[in-house]
Amino acid sequence: MRFTSEQHLDDGVLEREFALDEIPGTLWMPESAASAPLILIGHNGGLHRREPRLVARARQSAAYGYAVAAIDAPGHGERPRSTVDEQARADLRRAMQAGEPVDEIFESFVGPLVERAVPEWRATLDALLSLPEIGGPVGYSGMTAIGIRLAVVEPRIVAAAFFAGGFVPRAQREEARQTTIPLLFLLQWDDEGNPRQWALDLFDAFGTKEKTLHANMGGHAGTPWFEVDDGDRFFGRHLK
Amino acid sequence: MRFTSEQHLDDGVLEREFALDEIPGTLWMPESAASAPLILIGHNGGLHRREPRLVARARQSAAYGYAVAAIDAPGHGERPRSTVDEQARADLRRAMQAGEPVDEIFESFVGPLVERAVPEWRATLDALLSLPEIGGPVGYSGMTAIGIRLAVVEPRIVAAAFFAGGFVPRAQREEARQTTIPLLFLLQWDDEGNPRQWALDLFDAFGTKEKTLHANMGGHAGTPWFEVDDGDRFFGRHLK
Repeated sequence: MRFTSEQHLDDGVLEREFALDEIPGTLWMPESAASAPLILIGHNGGLHRREPRLVARARQSAAYGYAVAAIDAPGHGERPRSTVDEQARADLRRAMQAGEPVDEIFESFVGPLVERAVPEWRATLDALLSLPEIGGPVGYSGMTAIGIRLAVVEPRIVAAAFFAGGFVPRAQREEARQTTIPLLFLLQWDDEGNPRQWALDLFDAFGTKEKTLHANMGGHAGTPWFEVDDGDRFFGRHLK
Repeated sequence: MRFTSEQHLDDGVLEREFALDEIPGTLWMPESAASAPLILIGHNGGLHRREPRLVARARQSAAYGYAVAAIDAPGHGERPRSTVDEQARADLRRAMQAGEPVDEIFESFVGPLVERAVPEWRATLDALLSLPEIGGPVGYSGMTAIGIRLAVVEPRIVAAAFFAGGFVPRAQREEARQTTIPLLFLLQWDDEGNPRQWALDLFDAFGTKEKTLHANMGGHAGTPWFEVDDGDRFFGRHLK
């Protein structure tokens, strides 16, 4: 892992860009941190890890006391897109414009993404936990599909907050039953394109006994800001 | 309003019993409070206002900085039960034991309770807000049926947290559409006797645009303690 740049932000947060082989990432943490608990932020939808709302969340959690890391998933952000990625996106656009069902296209796109992204997250976790300023334990926050697989296969992740707005492949809907760590599940009640009942069924399916659903009004991008605080406090109860 | 006793508790909370005409109540607040925001706690199910879990919640919120008041609703706690109350309870027991439907019995019991309790809460509010140590604004926390009516008719109540575990009469399910204040709605996912879909439909029906659902695992009495903190913080955003 190589740090490629660093910036001292005015909220007392140190922001560092890093590269781990071909994986680009960003790490935010309090300037003064020693042995900070770590939160991994997973995102999706072609978003760059530097998307402004994601960065604002990361900075707030870092100012709260966490080390927060985001990486660009394969084919996302500044990483090259394969021909297969480009084809899937084109198929998706065409189907959406034609008003055709998109579930199978999402399945063919997000399923393999989970398979490729999870080993990268685990390698990133190895590298981050070797830094003296990061202590663990580790939480995961963000995209549900990647998060479910990580929660099931990665014993160093002890709590997770999932955002219900996003496609979850069949494999992860099944794996949800195997989750045992505390979960916070964030739902936008009128999320366009993400059926509410699917999300409620998934919440019901999680195997863990310690799970909380937070649902708020509005569409996909309308999660109220106070949920960032709630997430920090949720992790505060579990990352000790 | 007459204060009939007071007790200095070890968490810095002053607990005072009061009586307003025939209504008995308890007021908890920080010893040092001046102009504290007020939270009314409504309860049900024949519970005494001094039920231990309710008292623990009230004390925690008082230690957080609120004035917290509970009164015994008509026929509840230390108040006399009318022949009609006793008959309704007997009917309910018999129907439950026989495995018969209980909705109409609840309707005939809770509907009139709301009609009787809400004017008492408003009179209590008048009396409490005349105390110099209580400033307002005012929040309501607890039983949904009484809370919906209060939220709709009482302009001094600016935010409310409702517990989904309890019967809501037809009139209040309709009135829910008229709510406009910020709401926090607390649901126990496997609440015995309170169908989950009813609660989700009610959450959907609230007219206010600023509403949040918190759902946790377990039965009626299993709400995790951290929801008291979350409630205090919810009111902290709105009682200013």
